[in-house]
Amino acid sequence: MAVVKLTLEYDGTEFAGWVPQPGRRTVEGELRAALDQVYGGWSRLAVAGRTDAGVHALGQVASFQAEKGPPLERAAAALNSALPEDLAAVSAETAPEDFSARFSARARSYRYRIWRCATASPFERRRSLWWPRPLEEDALAESAALLLGKHDFRAFTPTETEHDVFVRTVSEAEWRRDGEVLEFRITADSFLRHMVRTLVGTMLEAEPAAFGQLLEGRPREVAGSTAPPWGLYLEQVYY
Amino acid sequence: MAVVKLTLEYDGTEFAGWVPQPGRRTVEGELRAALDQVYGGWSRLAVAGRTDAGVHALGQVASFQAEKGPPLERAAAALNSALPEDLAAVSAETAPEDFSARFSARARSYRYRIWRCATASPFERRRSLWWPRPLEEDALAESAALLLGKHDFRAFTPTETEHDVFVRTVSEAEWRRDGEVLEFRITADSFLRHMVRTLVGTMLEAEPAAFGQLLEGRPREVAGSTAPPWGLYLEQVYY
Repeated sequence: MAVVKLTLEYDGTEFAGWVPQPGRRTVEGELRAALDQVYGGWSRLAVAGRTDAGVHALGQVASFQAEKGPPLERAAAALNSALPEDLAAVSAETAPEDFSARFSARARSYRYRIWRCATASPFERRRSLWWPRPLEEDALAESAALLLGKHDFRAFTPTETEHDVFVRTVSEAEWRRDGEVLEFRITADSFLRHMVRTLVGTMLEAEPAAFGQLLEGRPREVAGSTAPPWGLYLEQVYY
Repeated sequence: MAVVKLTLEYDGTEFAGWVPQPGRRTVEGELRAALDQVYGGWSRLAVAGRTDAGVHALGQVASFQAEKGPPLERAAAALNSALPEDLAAVSAETAPEDFSARFSARARSYRYRIWRCATASPFERRRSLWWPRPLEEDALAESAALLLGKHDFRAFTPTETEHDVFVRTVSEAEWRRDGEVLEFRITADSFLRHMVRTLVGTMLEAEPAAFGQLLEGRPREVAGSTAPPWGLYLEQVYY
């Protein structure tokens, strides 16, 4: 009985998110179907980040326990032949018996991609937020710097939430410009539902001083809008 | 009566190519519908490169004569509000009375994108050819160099072709590597149907010496396969 640590990449456009839902196409649903095909038996499926509908992943991590199945060096290829084209197994490794992609994760990184060109790009649709209006990049940098450290993020998750604890520790938060692309990168121990998207939506709308005041446990109504899912990428998970 | 020179970008995935066909969604068909909406009257529509189904464009150029319509500085935005998301007007300029996007073009550049990673990428599907097998990049560079100058390319276009003249002059041809992406770039006065795709398919299969022998008016059967359309981009048109 080996535990397999699987790194996944997916284009979130045509998925109703990670979590299985009856009658909807979800990432976990497709992964389960592929595991059924490739492994004789498997159990204890866990995932680092339960991404929402439309959210992408470059380095999502899932884990499961397998009884029999292909040798590890051929596991990713075997899964890929069973997975749809918009979901790929990038690598498969063995992990310790007590490894869980969810509970063993020390930190996660997300990035949010914004397209700054005056014209919307056919190649950027569904992969970034198109924002042709002016933006104060210095102010965005200031807001990002305020995120570092421990804060109560309850203003940045829906009120009807399943979370009990709203404090998270942010170890990296910055905006980077590369040509017409402006990208926000954030690393934290874990994230609340919609947290990155609401942080981005609020930074785009609010002055740094006002934004900073929202980081200490304010109600949801005072934060800004939730940026759309198609700009968001789960980038990496740290163990 | 002004002539408008329009630069277009499109994701070719969901188009049955440029040329209008009954019952099919084509780039020209969508552009005509947008022109009808935005301009009171228009005529003499011309295009630099009649791309095939699935082929993309970063800098396609079309021209038309307009009677009335929005001021030039708002023309691209007005067209974009009438165009679908996978087709964008990047810019609109005035051109001389006798300008034709097709006949005034001095040269066109294409690029062909190949994804060299062992794993297919969900973000590269439909945008590059996935080629995980070994490739001799030195040999590809040698083949590309042989393309420079004047050659008879009849081996690289379907036998049932509408072309009369098969000689083309290539001014740039090279392979470039950027991370996991290998890209072929070619500039010529004009191109035969399927020419870039068949050049790429043949270079991937044949030794430079054998490839070089195909450049002097050989029959279609002796050249290699036609690489799939989703790796091909019309990059730029020169006037």
